[in-house]
Amino acid sequence: MPSERYTAFIDKLRDINVANSVAALLEWDQDTYMPPRGAETRAAQLALMTGVAHERLVDDDFRAALEAVEQERDEAPIVATNVREARRVFDRAAKLPTRLVQDIARATTLARADWAKARVDKNFTLFAPHLKKLLDLKREVAEKIGFKTDPYDALMDEFEPGTRSSDVQQVFDELRPELTSLVAELRDAPRRPDTPVLRRHCPRDAQDKFSRTLAAAIGYDFERGRIDPATHPFCLGLSPNDVRITTRYNEHFVPMSIFGTIHETGHALYEQGLPFEHAHTPAGEFISLGIHESQSRLWENMVGRNRAFWEHFFPQLTARFTELANVSLDDWHFAVNSVQPSYIRVEADEVTYNLHIMLRFDLERQMIAGELAVDDVPAAWNAAFEQSLGLTPPNDAQGCLQDVHWSIGIFGYFPTYALGNLYAAQLFTAARHALPELDDQFCRGEFAPLLDWLRINIHRHGKRFRAPELIERVTGTALTHEPFMQYLKNKYGPLYGI
Amino acid sequence: MPSERYTAFIDKLRDINVANSVAALLEWDQDTYMPPRGAETRAAQLALMTGVAHERLVDDDFRAALEAVEQERDEAPIVATNVREARRVFDRAAKLPTRLVQDIARATTLARADWAKARVDKNFTLFAPHLKKLLDLKREVAEKIGFKTDPYDALMDEFEPGTRSSDVQQVFDELRPELTSLVAELRDAPRRPDTPVLRRHCPRDAQDKFSRTLAAAIGYDFERGRIDPATHPFCLGLSPNDVRITTRYNEHFVPMSIFGTIHETGHALYEQGLPFEHAHTPAGEFISLGIHESQSRLWENMVGRNRAFWEHFFPQLTARFTELANVSLDDWHFAVNSVQPSYIRVEADEVTYNLHIMLRFDLERQMIAGELAVDDVPAAWNAAFEQSLGLTPPNDAQGCLQDVHWSIGIFGYFPTYALGNLYAAQLFTAARHALPELDDQFCRGEFAPLLDWLRINIHRHGKRFRAPELIERVTGTALTHEPFMQYLKNKYGPLYGI
Repeated sequence: MPSERYTAFIDKLRDINVANSVAALLEWDQDTYMPPRGAETRAAQLALMTGVAHERLVDDDFRAALEAVEQERDEAPIVATNVREARRVFDRAAKLPTRLVQDIARATTLARADWAKARVDKNFTLFAPHLKKLLDLKREVAEKIGFKTDPYDALMDEFEPGTRSSDVQQVFDELRPELTSLVAELRDAPRRPDTPVLRRHCPRDAQDKFSRTLAAAIGYDFERGRIDPATHPFCLGLSPNDVRITTRYNEHFVPMSIFGTIHETGHALYEQGLPFEHAHTPAGEFISLGIHESQSRLWENMVGRNRAFWEHFFPQLTARFTELANVSLDDWHFAVNSVQPSYIRVEADEVTYNLHIMLRFDLERQMIAGELAVDDVPAAWNAAFEQSLGLTPPNDAQGCLQDVHWSIGIFGYFPTYALGNLYAAQLFTAARHALPELDDQFCRGEFAPLLDWLRINIHRHGKRFRAPELIERVTGTALTHEPFMQYLKNKYGPLYGI
Repeated sequence: MPSERYTAFIDKLRDINVANSVAALLEWDQDTYMPPRGAETRAAQLALMTGVAHERLVDDDFRAALEAVEQERDEAPIVATNVREARRVFDRAAKLPTRLVQDIARATTLARADWAKARVDKNFTLFAPHLKKLLDLKREVAEKIGFKTDPYDALMDEFEPGTRSSDVQQVFDELRPELTSLVAELRDAPRRPDTPVLRRHCPRDAQDKFSRTLAAAIGYDFERGRIDPATHPFCLGLSPNDVRITTRYNEHFVPMSIFGTIHETGHALYEQGLPFEHAHTPAGEFISLGIHESQSRLWENMVGRNRAFWEHFFPQLTARFTELANVSLDDWHFAVNSVQPSYIRVEADEVTYNLHIMLRFDLERQMIAGELAVDDVPAAWNAAFEQSLGLTPPNDAQGCLQDVHWSIGIFGYFPTYALGNLYAAQLFTAARHALPELDDQFCRGEFAPLLDWLRINIHRHGKRFRAPELIERVTGTALTHEPFMQYLKNKYGPLYGI
């Protein structure tokens, strides 16, 4: 039986997180169904909800409730998880003065608008003063939060608690040369995929139906979710019983909806697999963005771009899309695994993707450390891009202005994308060991064994373990690039004939 | 320039109303897009938002801010409106003990579930104990709120501030015999409409398109709104810039979507016409449910069932719906104005509708006054129904169990539907005087002159005037049934040949 103090603490904690879930629904609605002119009212609603959640978090009542349960020193995993994580969130919030939070809110509102304009105009100088201001503010955040040696750690901790940037750096340093050399090998490989087949016309309605078929087949529960179109795909988890995804369609590039939907479904399977009885408390929440991304990338790339997956779904694909009727399974599988260095991160294949991330990680750390001046960012970006991807961006819109993150004051988020790829490979390798029939099951359209394995090993634990601890528990090793490189070589070697 | 005190007061007041608008969006989402299993999380979100709005309203800070602006005695209309109405809402909330509010919340949750079951089972005894409990609680509410002579006034005041039930009773007493005699005349009339044409098959997609055409034509701004399907049509106003309506479709009864959409558009035109600069304060809010309903009924019945309206839209109707191609304009116009006593309020025509309301008004007042025992409600309902509509309900599902209102603790709401009809007729008569070309304009598809008249005379004022005051200002007379009866006779006399 939980103590009365604990129950009172949980009630308060839930209220804070329910307020955050309301804000999340407001954002979902904004990106899906809100009328064009509703933005001003929506901003007021979001500001209110952010305020409600913040007020209740930094309230003396909540601090007292938290301290009371801390004194009970209950070591039951659920209790310990909720107390530990509530303390972490409380401390982060309590350390930041209201003035600083408001300054950031104002600065990002202005920065985002000018970033959008700068990107359209391909003119970095319009965005530069905002970036300077935001870096000053984020350095102040890092100072207030506190850090051992690297201010970047204080920022990254928001998204990837328990992982230090030096750990990430070490793995990236090992990954980079191997990845660069694989990209070079693939560039000079004897075989090339026939990518123009991906540009054949596929009607939107059929894409929508096919995407839903795939999402349901891999385990997405439509009784507890829904799919809607949106400009930028995302996943919203209000609770495990209301997990919505969005996707997008290009009638001349069907992989966008197929793999976009599988990716978001991967996120959604994680959210639907969290324990509902602990909804709106850390014991019912995802671990980190890196672990979240590991789920989406595992399903998108390791399952969705797997040949066994298409053994099962290819007949449905060619039946749905008449223009693909004369394509072979081999050609399709090769085409959706095409590797080609390109400028835009969100369009990158799974081999070159991490190169985009490592570049951002390096630049962000230098910017936060004050080692790279804002005015030098475009040149630094282009030099690094040339070095790692062999291309020079034709302009800043296709270079350092391409992502929204910096304009909304988000630094330390990018590395979680790469961690997701590496964790996905570690987890998928472990799943393969545990489930030796995996490919045969995929060929038969059976995805429940893999999902069950993920549910048992990852989803059901909520935030009980930090990411490094979970990965070590489940895979037997700490964060490493090796399974990822091995996975790439196993797949791309035979495909490209290298 | 508003005083600093006033600005501080308005900030607090806006926050309360923005919290209410967030709750309204949560309800809209629940009725449109929420996944089936999302209900439990949604209940937690709604409870949080109701709590946030209530806490901020009864907070000592808000009371102090309100008292401070009251002392300034600023008589500028906007200021005076906001202070007066904030005081009214504050007093109503402050007078109700938290215990009573919680008791009502619990009782209605249980009552609603058993009401739904009782309706399916056609078994009033299942609902009776809940109704007794709710009546006790609502009598306590009336005592706490206070009233001069009739406890029903304290309840009705929530929905129709400034209108006493004795005033309503007087108008109903005058209306009833005239209405009953008109219904009898129509029953024995020489001409009958060909209503089976309304049952012809009209595809849902074409209904959707046609409804949107109609809504846009009468002035609904889709940049500030949207239409979605829902089981029970309603209108959601988050602010004048985000006003959404829902509608429903029956492929074998096209009037459902046509007049349902026009009705909700009428509500939406009011919401979109409120002054955005005063959004989330009383100066930017609707006056009362009666006035709101006057707008929906005016557009639905006085415009949408007007022959001139169909002079314009009939060619589009027959072009859209092939099964209506051989129907004449006269036959269509007569069919959509068919009068036929029936059991269900929401399906009633505009002549018999008020008889349904008056019956509920009488029973509710007797129940609240303790003059009618709950166990006697079905018999009293059926007797009154027989007397006013000449029909005896075959069971309680088609009788006293048909409406949700009592099960959610709502008493004093029903009369606002009839007030809406009467106000609509008063306002439409005034508009006709002011705009003698109205019918010609309708024939040409011009609805802006009428909408502008409503905007200027009603919408732009927000809550500046109470309903009785507004009606007297705009029409020159107090609430009266005469324009309504005159309107009915003018329309139905020629149609039915009486």
